[in-house]
Amino acid sequence: MKINNNNNDIILLAHGDGGKKSADLINDFILKHLKNNILEKLEDSAVLNLKDFNGKKIAFTTDSFVVKRLFFPGGDIGKLSVCGTINDLITSGCMPIALSLSFIIEEGFSLYDLEKIILSIKETVNSSTCKIGVVTGDTKIVEKGYADGMYINTSGIGIINQEVNISPPNIEENDDIIINGSIAEHGIAILSTRKEFNFKTNIKSDCACLDKLVIEMLNVSKNIHALRDATRGGLARVLIELAELSNFDFEIYEDTIPIKNEVRGICDFLGLDPLYIANEGKIVAFVKNSDTEIVLNAMRKNPSGKDAKVIGKVKKRKNTRERTIPKVSLITKLGTHRVLSLFYSEQLPRIC
Amino acid sequence: MKINNNNNDIILLAHGDGGKKSADLINDFILKHLKNNILEKLEDSAVLNLKDFNGKKIAFTTDSFVVKRLFFPGGDIGKLSVCGTINDLITSGCMPIALSLSFIIEEGFSLYDLEKIILSIKETVNSSTCKIGVVTGDTKIVEKGYADGMYINTSGIGIINQEVNISPPNIEENDDIIINGSIAEHGIAILSTRKEFNFKTNIKSDCACLDKLVIEMLNVSKNIHALRDATRGGLARVLIELAELSNFDFEIYEDTIPIKNEVRGICDFLGLDPLYIANEGKIVAFVKNSDTEIVLNAMRKNPSGKDAKVIGKVKKRKNTRERTIPKVSLITKLGTHRVLSLFYSEQLPRIC
Repeated sequence: MKINNNNNDIILLAHGDGGKKSADLINDFILKHLKNNILEKLEDSAVLNLKDFNGKKIAFTTDSFVVKRLFFPGGDIGKLSVCGTINDLITSGCMPIALSLSFIIEEGFSLYDLEKIILSIKETVNSSTCKIGVVTGDTKIVEKGYADGMYINTSGIGIINQEVNISPPNIEENDDIIINGSIAEHGIAILSTRKEFNFKTNIKSDCACLDKLVIEMLNVSKNIHALRDATRGGLARVLIELAELSNFDFEIYEDTIPIKNEVRGICDFLGLDPLYIANEGKIVAFVKNSDTEIVLNAMRKNPSGKDAKVIGKVKKRKNTRERTIPKVSLITKLGTHRVLSLFYSEQLPRIC
Repeated sequence: MKINNNNNDIILLAHGDGGKKSADLINDFILKHLKNNILEKLEDSAVLNLKDFNGKKIAFTTDSFVVKRLFFPGGDIGKLSVCGTINDLITSGCMPIALSLSFIIEEGFSLYDLEKIILSIKETVNSSTCKIGVVTGDTKIVEKGYADGMYINTSGIGIINQEVNISPPNIEENDDIIINGSIAEHGIAILSTRKEFNFKTNIKSDCACLDKLVIEMLNVSKNIHALRDATRGGLARVLIELAELSNFDFEIYEDTIPIKNEVRGICDFLGLDPLYIANEGKIVAFVKNSDTEIVLNAMRKNPSGKDAKVIGKVKKRKNTRERTIPKVSLITKLGTHRVLSLFYSEQLPRIC
């Protein structure tokens, strides 16, 4: 099927029932665009023959995507689902090997939109380092009224070299905290697609696969102690989680955090805190101070890292009578300290 | 939280937004019951250190579950999602190593039901050979009206010994086709939960993990050429797919196919063909004729295989002018031949 704006074909319940229409959907859409010599076997499990594997570790991750709207400035649910899973692998210092792709699609969904999403998945996989791509999948159809168009789950596996050991407990005192660019753009781009918010913006989602960026960082330094992508809950959530997992306090300097003026303006207007807004192409790295410059230089050569900056520092944990858990302090432009904590309830649902 | 019938707590949108409530849900429900030394790290990817791995192959599979109703005679969506993924791994001759677990939950869902489902997942994993269990996961919450209670995705990875090579292209002429017990019980159990069908039955879903059964089969024979679990589309779909993938014709003998009388009666009454109705604990094995007896004997020692039978045979493919693809012939009790084909549209949606 060619992508054709006049095509009114839609998903039927029969596309998900294991009969002839299911087979057509797999052949005419999924295999047509995502075929490789493993996926085309259509076996219940993909079998991967990893050579020279001894001594290496495997990483395994999963993510479901329920983003509302499916198409947004800078991406769509297909691109998002590939980037999200590749970024979860790469933040373990793991080279992505293969992805699974599972659709839950609502009856009546446009086949034209489905094909656009599959093509976006194809393009995103092809531009990443995950060369085998999608090796196994599943499609379920639910009746009209039981999903919001489409949900996607992508899981991923990858391999880690024995020498690479990136994990929050490795964080050390005096590590620099680095981010690869400006924050909160994914969340704002998603909001701009929702009628209830009623605003226009040129801001696009930062949705991107960060595998090449991280590989370049790992090539220049053995002292990257932890990496995490700042998605749901934004930069603040990642910092709070990693402070707990590492058992250190962090200091973040407000005037160093890159935020575009337009994002700041929209956040002010809507009463949102950009530190808590989702990103889909931002990584936070904890790097030994002696390696900070070479890591920053390597990052800035990659389009996803050109605005990389140090935004904070790891400090010895100080307990007070009021606080017995690690804290993340935001040092404001005025020099005051604000302790970041998880919101009871987050600002934006269905952001990814 | 203790399971308590009086508990009216429900899922809120805030449980899925990456804030404090999300963390509570993970700690008080998921980790509480499914914790292991990998999952508890809560990293974006689970890292598995597989020792002595050289020369082995990895299998990778994914499945989303949208079964309607979430609780049914013989199981629930939690048990189903673990069994479905373990069975997909084991039918590649692959030992299950680790699972991912991703929830999409509708706002307003009962926390009591959520905990029941998580406990069912725990029990199913513990009774399987997948000893590490759930190592990575994700939870997304959608607004009321955008899911039917809950959907689950489970993906799984496992390892395959170099010597094991189970795959449809290995099917040979004269292989016996074996099934491990009576068919169509999952589909009928699911239907019995739906008000629109309005019938009562004692039939329970056959939902079960078949890993131990398959391991016992592989222990006694090196001549098991292909295995497939007969889920959506039933026994007929598996046979039609494997005939195509192996390029052989199959003959199936109607009077040998185990079907419980009550299932047959309900199917007659509703106008359904049991050959096309889903199972969740049935495996179809293609075995070299010389090994059939030892494989059957091994199967019958396992509760999931006690009614194992030979139901058909692999035949040389015969092309006719009318037919250039492999065919599956059902030899009826009257001796007539009926060629099985995929239905244009399947009989039952949302069966798994």
